[in-house]
Amino acid sequence: MTAVCVIGTGLIGGSLLRAAAAAGHEVWGATTSEQEVAQARQDGFDLVTSTEDALTRAAGAGAVVVIAVPFPAVDAVLRQVAEHAPGCTLTDVVSVKGPVSELVFRHTPTTRYVGGHPMAGKSASGWSAATPDLFQGAPWVLTTDEDTDLPAWREVADLVLSLGAHIVPTTATEHDAAVARISHLPHVLAAVLAAAGADGGPLALALAAGSFSDGTRVAATRPDLTLAMCEANRPALLAALDDALGRLGAARGALASTGALRATVTQGHEARKSLDHHRTAPQAQVQVDLTAPNALEELALIGTQGGHITALTDTTATATVPLES
Amino acid sequence: MTAVCVIGTGLIGGSLLRAAAAAGHEVWGATTSEQEVAQARQDGFDLVTSTEDALTRAAGAGAVVVIAVPFPAVDAVLRQVAEHAPGCTLTDVVSVKGPVSELVFRHTPTTRYVGGHPMAGKSASGWSAATPDLFQGAPWVLTTDEDTDLPAWREVADLVLSLGAHIVPTTATEHDAAVARISHLPHVLAAVLAAAGADGGPLALALAAGSFSDGTRVAATRPDLTLAMCEANRPALLAALDDALGRLGAARGALASTGALRATVTQGHEARKSLDHHRTAPQAQVQVDLTAPNALEELALIGTQGGHITALTDTTATATVPLES
Repeated sequence: MTAVCVIGTGLIGGSLLRAAAAAGHEVWGATTSEQEVAQARQDGFDLVTSTEDALTRAAGAGAVVVIAVPFPAVDAVLRQVAEHAPGCTLTDVVSVKGPVSELVFRHTPTTRYVGGHPMAGKSASGWSAATPDLFQGAPWVLTTDEDTDLPAWREVADLVLSLGAHIVPTTATEHDAAVARISHLPHVLAAVLAAAGADGGPLALALAAGSFSDGTRVAATRPDLTLAMCEANRPALLAALDDALGRLGAARGALASTGALRATVTQGHEARKSLDHHRTAPQAQVQVDLTAPNALEELALIGTQGGHITALTDTTATATVPLES
Repeated sequence: MTAVCVIGTGLIGGSLLRAAAAAGHEVWGATTSEQEVAQARQDGFDLVTSTEDALTRAAGAGAVVVIAVPFPAVDAVLRQVAEHAPGCTLTDVVSVKGPVSELVFRHTPTTRYVGGHPMAGKSASGWSAATPDLFQGAPWVLTTDEDTDLPAWREVADLVLSLGAHIVPTTATEHDAAVARISHLPHVLAAVLAAAGADGGPLALALAAGSFSDGTRVAATRPDLTLAMCEANRPALLAALDDALGRLGAARGALASTGALRATVTQGHEARKSLDHHRTAPQAQVQVDLTAPNALEELALIGTQGGHITALTDTTATATVPLES
């Protein structure tokens, strides 16, 4: 099994360390937080404060390097990767893929980079919140762009499957557009709703029930985490915000003119049903020939169709894809 | 204990019948659904399909009449109240108060009307979803406008307390402005978010996690219920929508120009914290003298401050009010 070097030991990086160790990988890591290093060592993990040392070891061991720091810190880590492990297989867990890919290309183009994004989380953060089962059954995006190195992709994909996640292959551009809609836009709308609600004063807060609590839950996330995520995905988030502004403006216009919200409410209801449908739809099993010249395109198509990869051999990826209703 | 006549046997009306019976009230009701009458009778409840019969009995027994039908059906029920129980103590459970109050004034001004709104619910609807404990610990708004009949208010308030709820006294106008922000706006935003997410196609749905699920949950509500609620509160919801549009437009502008969402995200985070703070703040106990000439104003002030009434005697209301931080 491949060795794994994790830079960053927050919720995702820490859970990755724990899950990789549980799966039998040799695994070590680095974080600049001396407190988290002390905690992790007490828990039996091989952590150091020197990113340089962890990366040098990775270069020697042929380890997969995983960048698990927030987006604003990626640039500095990549400069160190370029210096100490320029030929490594490199992946990350940052919630935007295009901007990370551009930084990799700028700083360390000789690494064999595969963008990654596990769709897992919880409200608590830091090493103390990390658990080895965080990724069980979770979708984990791995980018399959045309310049992706397929053997490196296979190596990272094997790691991801060993952690209990399933792989959603897609391009960086498609990923960023999708998460703008289903992750970053929800954070902005939750912030807007929370502020509009609190402006109603103590009476409004006293009357707030499930619809307000649910709609504002992610506004409880630490602002620096939300900002790092949303601001890094600026172009795709702008498009999603324009879509939401258009829809909200149309709702406002309809309510003001005819008093009717039927179009808004029924469209939203159907859309929510399509989410439930996606989750319960019958699945077709699909095989992708990894030796075919268009293997990367075939993999990306699985993601576009809402499918995911559940198993890999040397020559074949097995995927399930929801059947259209 | 006062007798209770409930018109409408959906989730709220049905739960009210069950809770009132459990509390020892003589209780009966009417619904136009023959199926629900059959079901309710099987469960041992005194239900009829004739609203006229139920109201005539209420007039004879001096019962409190509770209108528990959706807003679009209130007009027709009020015409029957005017004919068969024009002197009764009347309340309702509709989620807007100003528009119901106007209809009461138009159709049956001789009733002693107290607007009501229990802040309780769940996703299932209908008699089969009704439970006697739905109102335990829930806020239940009772309007205290200047023309409110205080003895009638007391009668309805005693009923509400006997069901396990606590009373939030407020004016119809303040209520409608508050629920537009913390109930109706969340429904519109959930619909907008669901539609914007589903437009991202199967990939977006496959990657959707907690933030999208939570933010769209209420879009699963039956559209006719959401529409009845939101459209009835048109002026207050328009103001809330304009507030949300302004905030969302400001977020869009800031992201496009400087790339920064800090103001939006930190304001939203503080607002969400104020909700948690409201729920855990230390409470002061306050007494309102119900024999004082300004008793209705004093009661409404409790609601404005985010407080609620927990007990009543013939002359005094005992309330708790959150202390400001």
